[in-house]
Order: sequence, then structure tokens, then C-alpha cells
Amino acid sequence: MLKIKDRYVVAVAGASGAIGNEIINILEEREFPVERLRLFDTDKSVGEDMDFEGSDMPVEPLEKGCFNGIDVVFFAAGPEITKAWIAEAVSAGCVVIDCTSFSRMSSEVPLVVPEVNASDLSWHKGVVANPSGAAIQLSSVLKPLHDAASVKRVVVTMLQAVSATSKSAMDELFTQTSDLLSFKDVQKRAYPHQIAFNLLPHVGQFADNDYTKEELRALEETKKILKCRSLTGTVTAVRVPVFRGLSECVNIETERKLTVAQVKELLASAAGITVFDAPSKNIYPFPLEASGRDDIFAGRIREDESIACGINIWTVTDNLRKGSALNAVQIAEELIKT
Amino acid sequence: MLKIKDRYVVAVAGASGAIGNEIINILEEREFPVERLRLFDTDKSVGEDMDFEGSDMPVEPLEKGCFNGIDVVFFAAGPEITKAWIAEAVSAGCVVIDCTSFSRMSSEVPLVVPEVNASDLSWHKGVVANPSGAAIQLSSVLKPLHDAASVKRVVVTMLQAVSATSKSAMDELFTQTSDLLSFKDVQKRAYPHQIAFNLLPHVGQFADNDYTKEELRALEETKKILKCRSLTGTVTAVRVPVFRGLSECVNIETERKLTVAQVKELLASAAGITVFDAPSKNIYPFPLEASGRDDIFAGRIREDESIACGINIWTVTDNLRKGSALNAVQIAEELIKT
Repeated sequence: MLKIKDRYVVAVAGASGAIGNEIINILEEREFPVERLRLFDTDKSVGEDMDFEGSDMPVEPLEKGCFNGIDVVFFAAGPEITKAWIAEAVSAGCVVIDCTSFSRMSSEVPLVVPEVNASDLSWHKGVVANPSGAAIQLSSVLKPLHDAASVKRVVVTMLQAVSATSKSAMDELFTQTSDLLSFKDVQKRAYPHQIAFNLLPHVGQFADNDYTKEELRALEETKKILKCRSLTGTVTAVRVPVFRGLSECVNIETERKLTVAQVKELLASAAGITVFDAPSKNIYPFPLEASGRDDIFAGRIREDESIACGINIWTVTDNLRKGSALNAVQIAEELIKT
Repeated sequence: MLKIKDRYVVAVAGASGAIGNEIINILEEREFPVERLRLFDTDKSVGEDMDFEGSDMPVEPLEKGCFNGIDVVFFAAGPEITKAWIAEAVSAGCVVIDCTSFSRMSSEVPLVVPEVNASDLSWHKGVVANPSGAAIQLSSVLKPLHDAASVKRVVVTMLQAVSATSKSAMDELFTQTSDLLSFKDVQKRAYPHQIAFNLLPHVGQFADNDYTKEELRALEETKKILKCRSLTGTVTAVRVPVFRGLSECVNIETERKLTVAQVKELLASAAGITVFDAPSKNIYPFPLEASGRDDIFAGRIREDESIACGINIWTVTDNLRKGSALNAVQIAEELIKT
């Protein structure tokens, strides 16, 4: 458990990646009570300096003993780095907020979206998992509907921006686009096929049943967050040539009927959700507008008349903020609430 | 009825638009027996020349009597142009292939995808409607499954390229992208919001129930083509920053169980459909690969275990070819079959 103090020694492992970077920005922006910030990484960024509150902070190597004296550490590198270093951090007495997929489905670890299940923080044992952006967004939108009318089944198409892959995937979209506009051949590294001006129905590794792990975990994590084992559904994930923003097209079947007006009201009153839904005025959420903002935006709310209790929602959030780094910092904020 | 001859006088009304242009290319490419090609338009392209089989063909104005002596006319401008000129064309004895939305839902007009319901051509009264690209693709993919196991319900997310809007929308995606890469402000004309590096859940006009007409007609037309009034479902359409290609993410519920292997076999044996589905080798359909090709490509075929008889399919086709112009020319080919 985190001892309540005035200020905390905070660390970010994987500081130089897209999510690590965003965690540092958000800690500063939200004035998290940081006594001292420590930055760790394993790659060539070690030795470089990064800015925090106007000071240059060195990126240090992950090494034995490096977590001593740290109160909260965010793991924002890959799951392998979490796997290699999490025991060290926990035994040094840190509370770990794991932003990778490593801890999410462990029954020993709460998986938390503060607006949805902050109460699960009470049973953490030194590790709290930050869900995938897909599950943060899906569980947040389903929660008020689930409380009101029990969600039975969802059919989801997720459209994921390149920043959810890596900084270098963002560079690749930029470079491929620029090369195409100059009629040059494109180079492919981040994805097996060109992403510029294209769509790839391939996000993450394929599992045995030909779903990707990303598709499977969006639903599995949502069930864990909502504590609803009976929730069922199916997900298809598509990579889109967009820099930031996760869009989810969600078809929802509930046990009890909800009207469109009720759904709009439930979503509008939920913490962290903003309803943008006035189609005749061209008001609906889209990635460019969600980019850099904190909320989950919901729109295109329509009755699905093909079933007795069906609703369609189109929802967008900034995958680097609420979809990862912001949610992680909000977990830390909850942990230090007195 | 079209009198069978060796060669036909063929006209394209709306010759200079994206679809008109593609019809001209495909007539040439597939060696449609054209005795003479007449090109019509209403805008500033009148008076210009367009190439057909190596000759310059003038674009003529639509005017009274202009259809005399023509066997087959493709209407490829907007529905207003069809509305204004279709009676004139029919009374001049032409067979009209209407590629606009004008005639599609008329009970007097067959709506035809040759691979699916060529037999409906037998009852035309001078007009055959070419379905929307969305319905061509959806009905083609559903047809073999429907014949084998009765399709009950579909949940569809459609991702539409800018070329489905207009040539100027393609220019807008190019210009906005190029301006963004040069850090210039973007101009918006074709869409109410920036489309470059963005997604807009807005394709076509909104109807009273907040669906767009495009979303509603995809299903209505599919029901007409499949002659299946009991088919139900819901569609969400999203504009994507892609030049060519319509992608449909289709969740299908059938009356009787189909295994993934059966679905793959049914689709692979259907005319006009190619299955690209080897995810472990990164083989799945995507817009860039479908572009310029004739088939409907299907992949990411997975069982949806959340219902007793559920299947997911990801399907892509070139919206300017099979999604409109090619299907229209195939209708003409069927009409002249002896």
C-alpha cells in the first residue's frame, strides 16, 4: 500500500517511448505531487536528458537496486520489460502501475479505469494494471448502460491509430505519406504492408483462432473491469492511417430496453464521457477532435431495430491520453487520495 | 428489351465523373461490342474530348432528342440528372443502366448484381438499377452463406474511400495531406471536417432516425437483391483517408450453423469472390491490394462464439470497379447475352 505523503518519488520505466513521454507530460500538466521524478529505459535513450517541470532529468538504466526509495513506478515499456523488472520494483516497496499487457489478466492484480472501478484499488498487492486503450474505452462506455440495463453482447469494430503501435510507426505513416506524394516507393518496417492511404485488419499478433490478441483482450479485459463474466461479444481491430485516436464502433445488446434518449443521458452523466451527437449539425466524434483531449467522446447514438434491445454508439478517445497515459496517472491520483 | 446485335451504340451520361470515367475504361478493357460511344454531361466538361479506344470522343450536352439511336445508356451522374433525363432515354428506346440511387428501390426496376441475381434482368422495363457499392459487396458476400444457411442478421461497419464521393474529394484528400505535411492550414470543401489523417462517421445525408441514407440503403438494397425481406441488421458507415476501396466488417448470424471452413469454401467457390485468409502469413484483404482489381476479397473469417451461429468476415473491393462501374458494365454484358 502507498503511504500517504505530501509529495512522492515517482518513476517512469520506458520514459522515452510514446506512452512514457505522455505520462511525464500528464504528471506535469495535472500537477501530480512529485517530489522527484526518476526516468528509466533500456535502450539508446539512456544517458539522454528529458524535460520535466523545466528541469533536465537524465534517463537512467534499469538495473538492480534502481527502484530503492521510489513510491510509484509506471511501467510503460513492453511486457518483456515489465516481466523482467516488476518483482524487483515490488520488493523495493514501490507501487507498480503496469501500462503493458503483462499483469492485466492476473487474478492477483486489479485492472482499473478510475471512473468505472476505482474500488478495485483496495485489494492491490503492489501492482495495479492499466487496461488496454480498447478496454478502457469500451468498459467506460458500457458501464452506465450496464448498470441501467445489463449489457449482454457487443459487436465491436475498433479503428486504431498508428501511435498505439510506437513512435516509429508514427514516423512510418509520415514518411510513407510523404514518399507517396513525391511518387517514391514506400519502405515498410512497423507493419507488414503499407499503412499510408490504406487500412490493415491486423492489430497485434494472431492467436490460434485467427483473432488477434488485441481483439480478444479488449473483451476479456472489459469483462474483468465490469466484473461481468456473462458479457459476450466479438471484436475486429483495424489499423488506420491516423496518428492519434482510437475509434470504436460498438453495437450493444442489453437485457432491458434503453431508448436513444436514455442512452444519451446515461453517457452524458457518466464521468469522463462527453456526448457529441448532433448529426444534422455535423457534430459527432472523430480522432482529430479527440486528439490531445481527456474525455471519451460518444456520438452517432442510434437504436438498432434489428433486435429488441439494441443500440449503436461510435466512440473516440485519444489513445495516448485516456487510452493509456492519462488513465495510468489517474490510477496514481486515486492511490494517493486521502 | 435490348435487341441482340453484333455491336451497340452505347452512351455514358456523366462521362467526366469518377464513375463515368471508369465505365468508359471498363467498356474498352472488357471489349464490350461498342459500335459507337456517345458521351454526355451537363457541366463544364461539355465540349471537351475524352479518349475511347484511341479516339477522341466529344462530351455532348444532355438535351432533348440526344438519346435517339442509342441502345444502352449508363446514367453515372447524380440522382437529379437521372430524374431529369431517364424518361427521355426510356422513351427513345434505350435500355438505361442507372448507376445513381434514383431507381434502386423502385418496384418497377430490378436491382442487379450479375453474380447474385442476373435472373432479375428478365423483368426489366427499360431500366436496370446498379446497386450502391455497399450493397453489391454485402449481397455478394452474403449470397452463398444465405443459400447454405439462411442469413438472419448482420452488423456492419463500412469504411468508405474518398473516391466514392467524387473526384474532387480525392483531390481534397491529396491536397489536405500535402498541406499538412508542409504545416499549412487545410481547406475543407468535400466534407465538413478534415479527412486527411482522420475518420468521419458520416457518409451521405442523415435521415430522421440519425442513420445516414447510405447506412439505411446498404441493407434495404441487399434485402432487395437477395429477395429476403426477413433479413435484418444495422450498418454504420465511416469515411476513411483512403483513395480507393470499400471495406466492410461484417458480423453475420445465420439460421443454421456454418463452420469457418465451410464459410471459406462457400466464398471461395462463389463467382467474383476471392478469399485472402492466411493471417499467420499476413494475408488478408486491404484497400490498396483490391484497388484496380475486379473481385470482392474476403478474409479474417472467424467464428463469433458469442452466438450459436455467428461468423465475422472482413471484405474489401474497389469501389470504382465492382463497387460501381464494373458491375454496371457486367449488367450490360448480361443484357446482350444470347
